[in-house]
Amino acid sequence: MSDTTETTPGWLTSDELEQARNRMPILYVEAVPVRVDDNGEVTSIGLLLGMGRDGSVSRSLVSGRVLHHERVRDALLRHLEKDLGPAALPRVPASLQPFTVAEYFPTQGITPFHDPRQHAVSLAYIVPVAGDCRPRQDALDLAWFSPQEALSVVVQNEMPGGHGVLLKQALAHAGCLS
Amino acid sequence: MSDTTETTPGWLTSDELEQARNRMPILYVEAVPVRVDDNGEVTSIGLLLGMGRDGSVSRSLVSGRVLHHERVRDALLRHLEKDLGPAALPRVPASLQPFTVAEYFPTQGITPFHDPRQHAVSLAYIVPVAGDCRPRQDALDLAWFSPQEALSVVVQNEMPGGHGVLLKQALAHAGCLS
Amino acid sequence: MSDTTETTPGWLTSDELEQARNRMPILYVEAVPVRVDDNGEVTSIGLLLGMGRDGSVSRSLVSGRVLHHERVRDALLRHLEKDLGPAALPRVPASLQPFTVAEYFPTQGITPFHDPRQHAVSLAYIVPVAGDCRPRQDALDLAWFSPQEALSVVVQNEMPGGHGVLLKQALAHAGCLS
Amino acid sequence: MSDTTETTPGWLTSDELEQARNRMPILYVEAVPVRVDDNGEVTSIGLLLGMGRDGSVSRSLVSGRVLHHERVRDALLRHLEKDLGPAALPRVPASLQPFTVAEYFPTQGITPFHDPRQHAVSLAYIVPVAGDCRPRQDALDLAWFSPQEALSVVVQNEMPGGHGVLLKQALAHAGCLS
Repeated sequence: MSDTTETTPGWLTSDELEQARNRMPILYVEAVPVRVDDNGEVTSIGLLLGMGRDGSVSRSLVSGRVLHHERVRDALLRHLEKDLGPAALPRVPASLQPFTVAEYFPTQGITPFHDPRQHAVSLAYIVPVAGDCRPRQDALDLAWFSPQEALSVVVQNEMPGGHGVLLKQALAHAGCLS
Repeated sequence: MSDTTETTPGWLTSDELEQARNRMPILYVEAVPVRVDDNGEVTSIGLLLGMGRDGSVSRSLVSGRVLHHERVRDALLRHLEKDLGPAALPRVPASLQPFTVAEYFPTQGITPFHDPRQHAVSLAYIVPVAGDCRPRQDALDLAWFSPQEALSVVVQNEMPGGHGVLLKQALAHAGCLS
Repeated sequence: MSDTTETTPGWLTSDELEQARNRMPILYVEAVPVRVDDNGEVTSIGLLLGMGRDGSVSRSLVSGRVLHHERVRDALLRHLEKDLGPAALPRVPASLQPFTVAEYFPTQGITPFHDPRQHAVSLAYIVPVAGDCRPRQDALDLAWFSPQEALSVVVQNEMPGGHGVLLKQALAHAGCLS
Repeated sequence: MSDTTETTPGWLTSDELEQARNRMPILYVEAVPVRVDDNGEVTSIGLLLGMGRDGSVSRSLVSGRVLHHERVRDALLRHLEKDLGPAALPRVPASLQPFTVAEYFPTQGITPFHDPRQHAVSLAYIVPVAGDCRPRQDALDLAWFSPQEALSVVVQNEMPGGHGVLLKQALAHAGCLS
């Protein structure tokens, strides 16, 4: 394996992660951050603005790996905090039943989802956020869209790898299609 | 029908309601009020203490009819406010997909659910409440139970008509069985 | 009410149904009939061809009222048999958790769903059918569409009252969007 | 890593699997095989009879890993065939939304689920089987239980590692509690 002299249990070195990615499906969580009104209805959806690997602008959902010995809830919360900042006040659902399971394959066309790096299987949740969202890390910005805007061709085209489809599934689940 | 000279559209007189109850299923919503911790996990369940029709003490969930031209969300919110007071801050889910549909029959034994008054079909939701709960109306009191307590034989026996089963289904959905 | 001297319990005369429709939400079930392959994936969707009230051609899902003292499962099965014939071999899901709850209002614009006759609340299910489908009653014909065709603008435009939206929600739930 | 000179892509040697198990959550699928009647209601549940590692008799659900580049549906079908034989005619659901996500930790007490070998995250489905079930491989036998029997203390005690809880969750989802 790699030359790293030590690894924290549950952490992978880059080499190990690379190797694991070639051997087994990697478990992910994804969250669609939404604003809701008093009766719980979705009023807007938060999309992260980022740079695609090819330099193009792209929009994405909150997403990341579940670590060894980490609960799905804790992974969700960690990635929400990583992507939306510590004051976002996300409301992780009481039930872990996801609205869908998204299967990202390194090969295109098997499912609507594609990830050139790996076979990832993602548990997807709608997560209302009540607080102040301040993207950190790689995200350039967070922008809020109405359900209608989020479903528009323009926004859908800015969401590669099937994230646009996942967003549509989330909005269908929340009853926001028209 | 009845002799009432006028009724607000969408409202039924007692006679009309009686009659409707003999002719068609009545749509209900039910909410299991819960406290959750920061990562969304259920820590306790709120049960209303009431007087059964036979004078016995009974515990129940938030429950009530959906009115004509009322949205399910609005009915949920109305009954939550009616039963928990105006400061309960309920978080009605973003999706209307219920965790179950409970069918109450006037005849016993068709389903686990029984309502001697009517055939009621109820959409059931887990609803985190963040605020101060002060039962009004008929409810004598609201008490909070841990998932384990809520599943105990003592509490289950205090929930007639299948409400104990519905509570178990809610806790199963929230991953709180053991 | 009406002059009918007697009604079978659980049945409404036309007048009574008319009256109930003005007073309370009417409970419906809806089924999206699908063909699935060996691993359960949806390969095609069956849409009923009918005549709209204005003489136009329209496509619809299997749909109908739940009667007094009728279980949701039995209502589903009854309407599936009514619309697809006795040899359709529908596989009603093991769980009654619907993929969505569709709220049809007589007023337009409250939800994506509209029914000029009534306020109807519908529990919606995806139902694989394995047998031979022969529409009866009012339906002129049943036609099978691929998920892609079902989502096309042409087909969507032939589905009034929000049925197109409900179909999109079903396909989102089944992972058939692209 | 290991000394194996070659591995089929997507397959892990025993050593590699051991190593992966110490580093990341392993994705599983689990199926609760059920018999249903004509209207889809669960009438009985199939449990595999096996030998626990300590020689004790134990009952379990259909369960297994998702392999690299394998779809969740295909993994479900593969494990159903492995455990129930080629003539079981399983009906994998049209939607991949699981009824729950079970998190097995090597440490006891974090969730109701425990697997001393690994951190496994399992997508759980109710799967009606219509055909002839003939367990192969490690399973000694398959026995069918009514929902009531499956929920009995005797059967629950024969299901270690949280499988009894998962079964209860499945039956709650299917509306089979009482």
